[in-house]
Amino acid sequence: MANPQNPSAEDSLIARYFRPLATDPGAFGLVDDAAILSSSGEDIVVTTDAVVEGVHYLAADPPDTIARKALRVNLSDLAAKGAVPAGFVLTLALRSREDAWLRPFADALGEDARSFGCPLLGGDTVSTPGPQMISITAFGRVPRGRMVGRTGARPGDLILVTGTIGDAALGLDVLTGGAVAAALASDPAVRDFLVSRYRVPQPRNALAQAVSDHANAAMDVSDGLAGDLTKLCAASGVSATVGVATMPLSAAAAGLIARKVVGIETLLAGGDDYEVLCTVPPAQSEVLIAAGQAAGLAVTAIGTIVPGHERPRFLNGQGQELTLKRLSYSHF
Amino acid sequence: MANPQNPSAEDSLIARYFRPLATDPGAFGLVDDAAILSSSGEDIVVTTDAVVEGVHYLAADPPDTIARKALRVNLSDLAAKGAVPAGFVLTLALRSREDAWLRPFADALGEDARSFGCPLLGGDTVSTPGPQMISITAFGRVPRGRMVGRTGARPGDLILVTGTIGDAALGLDVLTGGAVAAALASDPAVRDFLVSRYRVPQPRNALAQAVSDHANAAMDVSDGLAGDLTKLCAASGVSATVGVATMPLSAAAAGLIARKVVGIETLLAGGDDYEVLCTVPPAQSEVLIAAGQAAGLAVTAIGTIVPGHERPRFLNGQGQELTLKRLSYSHF
Repeated sequence: MANPQNPSAEDSLIARYFRPLATDPGAFGLVDDAAILSSSGEDIVVTTDAVVEGVHYLAADPPDTIARKALRVNLSDLAAKGAVPAGFVLTLALRSREDAWLRPFADALGEDARSFGCPLLGGDTVSTPGPQMISITAFGRVPRGRMVGRTGARPGDLILVTGTIGDAALGLDVLTGGAVAAALASDPAVRDFLVSRYRVPQPRNALAQAVSDHANAAMDVSDGLAGDLTKLCAASGVSATVGVATMPLSAAAAGLIARKVVGIETLLAGGDDYEVLCTVPPAQSEVLIAAGQAAGLAVTAIGTIVPGHERPRFLNGQGQELTLKRLSYSHF
Repeated sequence: MANPQNPSAEDSLIARYFRPLATDPGAFGLVDDAAILSSSGEDIVVTTDAVVEGVHYLAADPPDTIARKALRVNLSDLAAKGAVPAGFVLTLALRSREDAWLRPFADALGEDARSFGCPLLGGDTVSTPGPQMISITAFGRVPRGRMVGRTGARPGDLILVTGTIGDAALGLDVLTGGAVAAALASDPAVRDFLVSRYRVPQPRNALAQAVSDHANAAMDVSDGLAGDLTKLCAASGVSATVGVATMPLSAAAAGLIARKVVGIETLLAGGDDYEVLCTVPPAQSEVLIAAGQAAGLAVTAIGTIVPGHERPRFLNGQGQELTLKRLSYSHF
């Protein structure tokens, strides 16, 4: 009983900041401690991802971007599973209840909840003496038996990825004052672009239906493309060959590679991309790429699923295999 | 990227400790980052509760009891909503991955998951430099439209509560060396009983069907009976009269009150009871009490719902109203 103050303070915090986000009837306006997720016999896809201050975001990050990232990393999972967002629950571990932090946090969370059609259903707000943490469990709906898993990749499938790879890792380097920050000292627009890619992922929910219709296997790229593709291949019992020259890069990332500030390996192992990685029978790849174009989103073929159980091979333009010292980010 | 070590370490932690708990086919053996909760058109009840080291449990608490508490506080919510457990997702924010902590934690979590029929569906394991935190979102099933809410209490309803009230708050006092600890210095069996009530709640899922069949409104008592009843009444637009002399107390709690070590007010405002509080039309109360007896569980009538909007009144044996300085625990 660390802090037995005003017994209604927790409720009034919830009412003040979060009740406006609870627009779904199943949320009961957050007056209950449980919510209802209705179903007409579809499967409910459940995903949960937490972000921790100092680990997944920086203490100095603006609270609105922290809110968006916390929700979007979960929306990204739903997109990769081919699911339509249905709602989320929020656990917020706070050190303080400063309005200057909570107001922009809640407002941005509400904006994203509305624009992605993913209302707040419930949650828990607790105090912590340590770093703040936001844990979100998000729900989506798919027709019964139609979630796109990790186990369905088949030899011959093309490997497709949305957007561009590696920007977020470069953005983190900018924020932490690394080599990228130094190289871009006189280029604030590029710095800002990379930082925004780190702070505010762009989940690819617009592509969920096409992923559901065409992909044999899919996941979102959150810990680094190399490591995540390795996981997908392991789950499917296959291997892969990836052409690094075809990797979709932003102009910012391509420029830094050309100047040898970073190597492609750094981008392949960098985390926080939140792009969709999927494998598709070749005959269907054009349809998926076209669906991306219709949504204003690049979808790029980067390689092929091959038989075998060895780790995916990443080949440069000369067909030589890259040695990746690190595949992805790991917490432990 | 605080800790870019072995990229497979997080996966191997999950495989080693938590895959054995993921017995539901919808968990996909935790190889995917999403799970499936199937539904045949029932409503899915969703509840989320987090426990933080130093706030909801003590750093010195045994890891097996921490695991049980983290899951059971959520099972308790499902019981009070009349729902049958369906599964849960786990977010674990860890400072370290010591086997000496994780092994008993995971084993106990698995035992409870099995015995309550609530398998692990998925989760996220993150590192934190601060206090450990376990956030669980649990799911239950109810027939469509049949979740027992907080808003259905009607004047004339009897107020029933399961088990005994206040033991957990006394147990926390024992652990933190307060007046109760001193009064029980020579009575280790009573101390152990109260500590176990704090550390390992006994969620009343055996009563869920009867609550679903008979209660107009229900919630679990987690922050203190007085404050929780106040919330239930506010949500229902009613008031209540409670006879404190009828409050179900353990022999341990009754003894401490008789010795004037604590007052009844402390028990009414103490948190962590995890009993079911419900309101029931008088004609149905005997059936609910009998259902409790069949499950080996005391169910006690403690008062009556009355019209009005004032806070519930707690009357002593002489009909005098108690003044409660504090209604419940609050985080802020």
